Amino acid sequence: MTTLTITTDFGNLNGFVGTMKGVIWGIAPDANIADISHEIPAQDIRTGAIALWRASAFFPAGSVHIAVIDPGVGTKRRAIAAKLGNQYYVLPDNGLITPMLEDAEAAGQEVRIVHLDNAEYWLPRVYTTFHGRDVFAPVGAHLAAGVPLEALGTPISDPVRLPLPKPLPTEEGFEASILVVDVFGNCTTNLRVSDVPDLEQITIFTAGQEIHGVLPSYGHAKVGELVAVTDSEGFIEIAVVNGSAAKTYGIKLDDPVRIQIRG
Amino acid sequence: MTTLTITTDFGNLNGFVGTMKGVIWGIAPDANIADISHEIPAQDIRTGAIALWRASAFFPAGSVHIAVIDPGVGTKRRAIAAKLGNQYYVLPDNGLITPMLEDAEAAGQEVRIVHLDNAEYWLPRVYTTFHGRDVFAPVGAHLAAGVPLEALGTPISDPVRLPLPKPLPTEEGFEASILVVDVFGNCTTNLRVSDVPDLEQITIFTAGQEIHGVLPSYGHAKVGELVAVTDSEGFIEIAVVNGSAAKTYGIKLDDPVRIQIRG
Amino acid sequence: MTTLTITTDFGNLNGFVGTMKGVIWGIAPDANIADISHEIPAQDIRTGAIALWRASAFFPAGSVHIAVIDPGVGTKRRAIAAKLGNQYYVLPDNGLITPMLEDAEAAGQEVRIVHLDNAEYWLPRVYTTFHGRDVFAPVGAHLAAGVPLEALGTPISDPVRLPLPKPLPTEEGFEASILVVDVFGNCTTNLRVSDVPDLEQITIFTAGQEIHGVLPSYGHAKVGELVAVTDSEGFIEIAVVNGSAAKTYGIKLDDPVRIQIRG
Repeated sequence: MTTLTITTDFGNLNGFVGTMKGVIWGIAPDANIADISHEIPAQDIRTGAIALWRASAFFPAGSVHIAVIDPGVGTKRRAIAAKLGNQYYVLPDNGLITPMLEDAEAAGQEVRIVHLDNAEYWLPRVYTTFHGRDVFAPVGAHLAAGVPLEALGTPISDPVRLPLPKPLPTEEGFEASILVVDVFGNCTTNLRVSDVPDLEQITIFTAGQEIHGVLPSYGHAKVGELVAVTDSEGFIEIAVVNGSAAKTYGIKLDDPVRIQIRG
Repeated sequence: MTTLTITTDFGNLNGFVGTMKGVIWGIAPDANIADISHEIPAQDIRTGAIALWRASAFFPAGSVHIAVIDPGVGTKRRAIAAKLGNQYYVLPDNGLITPMLEDAEAAGQEVRIVHLDNAEYWLPRVYTTFHGRDVFAPVGAHLAAGVPLEALGTPISDPVRLPLPKPLPTEEGFEASILVVDVFGNCTTNLRVSDVPDLEQITIFTAGQEIHGVLPSYGHAKVGELVAVTDSEGFIEIAVVNGSAAKTYGIKLDDPVRIQIRG
Repeated sequence: MTTLTITTDFGNLNGFVGTMKGVIWGIAPDANIADISHEIPAQDIRTGAIALWRASAFFPAGSVHIAVIDPGVGTKRRAIAAKLGNQYYVLPDNGLITPMLEDAEAAGQEVRIVHLDNAEYWLPRVYTTFHGRDVFAPVGAHLAAGVPLEALGTPISDPVRLPLPKPLPTEEGFEASILVVDVFGNCTTNLRVSDVPDLEQITIFTAGQEIHGVLPSYGHAKVGELVAVTDSEGFIEIAVVNGSAAKTYGIKLDDPVRIQIRG
């Protein structure tokens, strides 16, 4: 049984994602298909990349992840497919691949990328406005059905990379920033807890507030309290217990988060 | 072919549910997975419980229902799994199980519940902020793949129960209340039509309005009319034909509904 | 492996669609099920019909498409199933079938329609308020599992048809209109590019704006520019590059679009 996922900014109104599933099952009838998100804000490549990065590591080896946040559809931007570690990715070459690629490189895993220039694996007729259906879905399905990556196109080594904000070491600790605001209003920073020597001995400054220490989970403070916890990927997260840190304190993507490590 | 369902308050933005599916298919590659709802209001245990209760009875015997509305994630609240009748449930022990449990007890069906204290069936690393991914998804998948319920943890008989409002018999009929407001603005009460001797001979008082009799369906009155019908679970429902009773009359969860039975 | 799709106006809050999947898998345990859309505006038959029409052509032969936008549920409106070309449809007889039927007729494909009057293929107990669960889901699943169309009910030849606005030829070109507004705010007209002799030599008048020529894709003009492109079904579409034509220019369904063909 092969597994695919789809991540887009298509929303769920118009049936675009359902159409892609029809194309996939026409080629790989036994495939399981999971939706990662179709509510990525329109053309927001970074938010799409982060959502896929957080999800894809939990899929079985050999899964194929199709992602279409594609403001350049129909222009000369390349379409690419990649094997990174034990997962496959099929997506426009606009930086969407960045966090998965950086992780695979950092871990010394397999990295193979091809430019999707072999039209044999696309739908017979390609419309310039819907490569999700006409290029990415069929290519992903062929990969899932066993076509080798290199059959799909020419190997490349220069995929477009997105600048992802990294925490900067400072004299007192780190200058970090908000990387994800989730549906609960929890705000994840780009600082890993493993970069902090003692989670009880730090102070976090953000949105004019001051938080002391990182708790094991939301339930370890009172309802309504502003806390820092370890998020589900091992990063420091700012949250309001049973509430929304984003709404209550106006925290948003890229807001600065100053980390003071006491000694 | 095994079937699982997932019910959460995670929304569909961040890919949390997709991640859970990746975990499930890593353990039970052939499983069908249905989403029940991921739009349960954050931390609204009762609304989640009602949605799952209305859906799960229609699944094939042996289906596994994972539900994660879990304000206490990472605290000492228990995680549990249960066999109720011919369906399995995997969820936090915070009352989510209540309507299914009450029905199984009332029907004299099998009721077996375990505390999920055997970490062998969890992901190797459990983050305190995402038990949906690290505990509930793998446990549900193992159940679907044939692991016996009792292997997952210690039997218990004291699951947390949610107080669910019940209709009170009165001298004239019943004092009922609104239990579900659906996406159309239809408002289901907690009174079963089977508790009413003659559906044509009742008067319903709610939101300052008076409704005479219960119709077979919406189409039996004029567009815009306020009516009572039998909902799809056999309860009395307040609706506006091709409109929204919730919006037009401001009806909301737990609003009182007075039922007068004429004789 | 059989494939079904579901299109409704049920939203994703209450679990109605998940319930239908439970019913389907109880009858056809191996079926793949794709959601086309559940965000069709309540009772908007035409928008549902268009979404399904655009998606269903991309599904494998023999797929079964269940659609439930059904303001007349529980009244005497018929439920129907159809084979149109190589696809099956199961839906209320209220015009939902129209664009697929018109296409099949225009292409001289197989057209067989039955009135679903054989209760043997429904759930044992049918509630008048949820035929999606009690009639359409089980009938669709039985079709997918191999029950012949004619076993499900009596053949008919007079399905209800929806008037779909068609472009009118004028002296200067066409009087067209907006048929779809998608999630990006792109606005598709009902005029096929194949009806226009030279896409570079037309002027489009809509919302008080004037657009010269039809571009291959969004990326061929500047961000923020109002353009016409060929949409993914071969129709002329009005769009704002990386923006929303619907929001910026207030374009909405059925707005007139005047096409001037220069010679």
